[in-house]
Amino acid sequence: MSYTLGQLAAKVQGVVKGDADLVIEKLGSLEKATQKELSFLANSKYQSLLGSTSAGAVLVKTDELAQLVDNAIVVSNPYLAFAQISHLFVPATHCWSGIHQSAVVSPKATIAENVVVGPNAVIDDDVLIAEGCVIGAGCVLSRGVKIGKSSRLYSNVTLYHDVEVGEACIIHSGTVIGADGFGFAPNDGFWEKIDQLGSVIIGNNVEIGANSTIDRGAIENTQIGNGVKIDNQVQIAHNVVIGDNTAIAGCVGIAGSVKIGASCTISGGAGIAGHLSIVDHTHITGMTMITKSIDEAGSYSSGMGMEPTGKWRRTAARIRRIDEMAKQISSLGQQIKKLSDKG
Amino acid sequence: MSYTLGQLAAKVQGVVKGDADLVIEKLGSLEKATQKELSFLANSKYQSLLGSTSAGAVLVKTDELAQLVDNAIVVSNPYLAFAQISHLFVPATHCWSGIHQSAVVSPKATIAENVVVGPNAVIDDDVLIAEGCVIGAGCVLSRGVKIGKSSRLYSNVTLYHDVEVGEACIIHSGTVIGADGFGFAPNDGFWEKIDQLGSVIIGNNVEIGANSTIDRGAIENTQIGNGVKIDNQVQIAHNVVIGDNTAIAGCVGIAGSVKIGASCTISGGAGIAGHLSIVDHTHITGMTMITKSIDEAGSYSSGMGMEPTGKWRRTAARIRRIDEMAKQISSLGQQIKKLSDKG
Amino acid sequence: MSYTLGQLAAKVQGVVKGDADLVIEKLGSLEKATQKELSFLANSKYQSLLGSTSAGAVLVKTDELAQLVDNAIVVSNPYLAFAQISHLFVPATHCWSGIHQSAVVSPKATIAENVVVGPNAVIDDDVLIAEGCVIGAGCVLSRGVKIGKSSRLYSNVTLYHDVEVGEACIIHSGTVIGADGFGFAPNDGFWEKIDQLGSVIIGNNVEIGANSTIDRGAIENTQIGNGVKIDNQVQIAHNVVIGDNTAIAGCVGIAGSVKIGASCTISGGAGIAGHLSIVDHTHITGMTMITKSIDEAGSYSSGMGMEPTGKWRRTAARIRRIDEMAKQISSLGQQIKKLSDKG
Repeated sequence: MSYTLGQLAAKVQGVVKGDADLVIEKLGSLEKATQKELSFLANSKYQSLLGSTSAGAVLVKTDELAQLVDNAIVVSNPYLAFAQISHLFVPATHCWSGIHQSAVVSPKATIAENVVVGPNAVIDDDVLIAEGCVIGAGCVLSRGVKIGKSSRLYSNVTLYHDVEVGEACIIHSGTVIGADGFGFAPNDGFWEKIDQLGSVIIGNNVEIGANSTIDRGAIENTQIGNGVKIDNQVQIAHNVVIGDNTAIAGCVGIAGSVKIGASCTISGGAGIAGHLSIVDHTHITGMTMITKSIDEAGSYSSGMGMEPTGKWRRTAARIRRIDEMAKQISSLGQQIKKLSDKG
Repeated sequence: MSYTLGQLAAKVQGVVKGDADLVIEKLGSLEKATQKELSFLANSKYQSLLGSTSAGAVLVKTDELAQLVDNAIVVSNPYLAFAQISHLFVPATHCWSGIHQSAVVSPKATIAENVVVGPNAVIDDDVLIAEGCVIGAGCVLSRGVKIGKSSRLYSNVTLYHDVEVGEACIIHSGTVIGADGFGFAPNDGFWEKIDQLGSVIIGNNVEIGANSTIDRGAIENTQIGNGVKIDNQVQIAHNVVIGDNTAIAGCVGIAGSVKIGASCTISGGAGIAGHLSIVDHTHITGMTMITKSIDEAGSYSSGMGMEPTGKWRRTAARIRRIDEMAKQISSLGQQIKKLSDKG
Repeated sequence: MSYTLGQLAAKVQGVVKGDADLVIEKLGSLEKATQKELSFLANSKYQSLLGSTSAGAVLVKTDELAQLVDNAIVVSNPYLAFAQISHLFVPATHCWSGIHQSAVVSPKATIAENVVVGPNAVIDDDVLIAEGCVIGAGCVLSRGVKIGKSSRLYSNVTLYHDVEVGEACIIHSGTVIGADGFGFAPNDGFWEKIDQLGSVIIGNNVEIGANSTIDRGAIENTQIGNGVKIDNQVQIAHNVVIGDNTAIAGCVGIAGSVKIGASCTISGGAGIAGHLSIVDHTHITGMTMITKSIDEAGSYSSGMGMEPTGKWRRTAARIRRIDEMAKQISSLGQQIKKLSDKG
């Protein structure tokens, strides 16, 4: 895998400054890249690194910046260009092709042309896999699963019955889609299971990280919109609906029946209580707890940053007595009023 | 799968109002159900939906409510009745039967009649599976595992050696039971592993969600009581003991040697520090941190709900200075006292 | 598995007090151990249990303590000695040996002598497994994975391409190492994937719990130092570097490009925001959020412990108005000053 700087510039509608025949074999950071590597400057904050980098070439935004290095590709959005070029340097992730003989594939499944099914994968009845898909080793696709074209499941993904995944999706290992939502009716001290009769419907161009879970709906389907990006260890409960192009970072938990709009970002460790609605273009910062619906786009927070433990303990002890403090303030105000009146 | 309204009423000791011969093919919500679907009214807050629903029939609590729709089943607890009826509408989740030829089953394992073992499941020596169990594809049951009758493991569940699961349990995909507890002795800057010699014992009628983890005990066993319900991505550390019918929502973390009573509910994202005891009938709200034992039944919280980020930042900055605020209040009080004394 | 007290004392450079021929078959706690079991007293707080224990023998720190029981091993660090002795009592965890015939092993993989590969494991091209390793059932080792000698992967572990694991490591079930980091460039309302071209390099003597995730680096590698211990359900994002002998408890989330020093401890449920540096010997308490780099060793916190829900609600409502409270205090101060000036 190697490309000339000219070839790479053409891929991203960029302009070469310097040696268009320079051979690039790898991508690298400004700090560590070597002569055969292409780096990028996405944030002007790091501009000084252009002086010291050993990168063979750098993706930059302007001709002025290009003059600070020997070779450059000038492009309007260097970070996006870097992302696009990254696709060219992906190594082989697995070395099998076709349907591996150890896979268990139901004769009632329909598998299109040009599909890879890895070793020990299990494909049950009525599964439909469209062309160009890669199903990793050890994946289980239960009865009636449908996968749109060019989607990729890494190893050991589990899809329950009737789950539908769109086109050009990526699902990472250990992720479980379509397990039962957590639904029980109280019955005299016991919990009566409510069988979960909906499914999970996932749009196109969705990526889901490793060891995440998306539960099937109780009655209706859980729905993940097009272009949604979900990180690792995210929990999405039953009946949740997520709008297009929303991005959800690691360790987020979303309780049942939440509706999240389009183009939202939810940072790591945030939690969203059940049955809430969140409008498009909402941003939630790390470890925030959402307990009310959000009707207005914007950024929302409740995460508290750390302090040295000793100081935090005093702070926490004061917080516990804040109600008392408020009453003291009120009492002081009255005393002052009395003194003023007297005076 | 279809039933007459009369058949369904009989299942839940309900009384049909309207057409007992109406054929129900599915369950649905009041908002979306169609003529072939049965819905339910569990919460009088939604009573107005009875006027607009297209559901073929509705489970309701009283004759008066039944009069608001064409067909109804009157039953004392419509939500419980809905749960009970949900069992009748579960579709096939997998299409294999018996012990799949691709499963690896030790000749020293004992598998009762009427057990399903899915493709590529692995059953090690001395495993005992009672009648009526379903072991999903890709599950690994290590040496000495015991599963009580009519329990179900979905695909890709991992049970370590000697783990015992009771009767009528459900364990969802990706869940790992019996991995080593996190136990190390400090040894001159290094960590010396403490081998975890206990196991995990799970009662009857327990349900465990997807990608949860329950570690084996260090010396004694980790124990999960009867009727306990555990959601997805819950972490239960070594030596934990959980009482009967306690329910634990997604993303909860329970540290080592915690004892939790019966009939507790723990909401999503809560964390419980090690070696604590929590009495029966304790309720913990979302994202709460438990750092002391709880001796009195009731509800406990420490989760802070979100605000717009700008406002929250000011709030958080003030919180950091709350100790100073308290001292200012105290100082103001003294100044006022001086003024009063003077006056 | 049984040993005389004398044999066990020799393993830990301890001195027997009492019957060196006593046969020990098991380890036990002071409260529950029986006559055939060895227990330990690590914390003088529990010294009174020595009077009531039925343990056959106890690991203790001093001769004086030894006199309180019939049989003892006196050793300078009883807890460490207990850890060392625990290794002797591990039962069989699996009953297969060699390379199981159901495993799918590439002819281009290199597997050393004395390696166990469990049923249905999948070993891709160019994988290198050193001597003495145990690869559990259902594990997937993708193209180019390297595992150092005497390492153990429990069942259903997934390693992506090019991941390297050192010697004497333990990785528990369901853990996924090397999935793509969560990297996307915004592109006109969509997210353009940044292919993750680094890998994950794990040192020696590392233990990783169940269902944890460690993502591959974007450009450079994600790195886990020697002797690091990671609990269950921990999420480590791309480009993270963790120093030697740091221990990370369950449910911790570490965002991208964080550098954590050596010999740190991070308690359960903590979260660390991206691109931060944390010095050696830092300790982070449970459910703390780290949003700034830590330059000074010590303990850091922001987790808030629970209160009864009613009291907490009043507290939380006051917290939301703390800015107002601070302004009231300031106003009161001015009023007092005026009164004083007047007086």
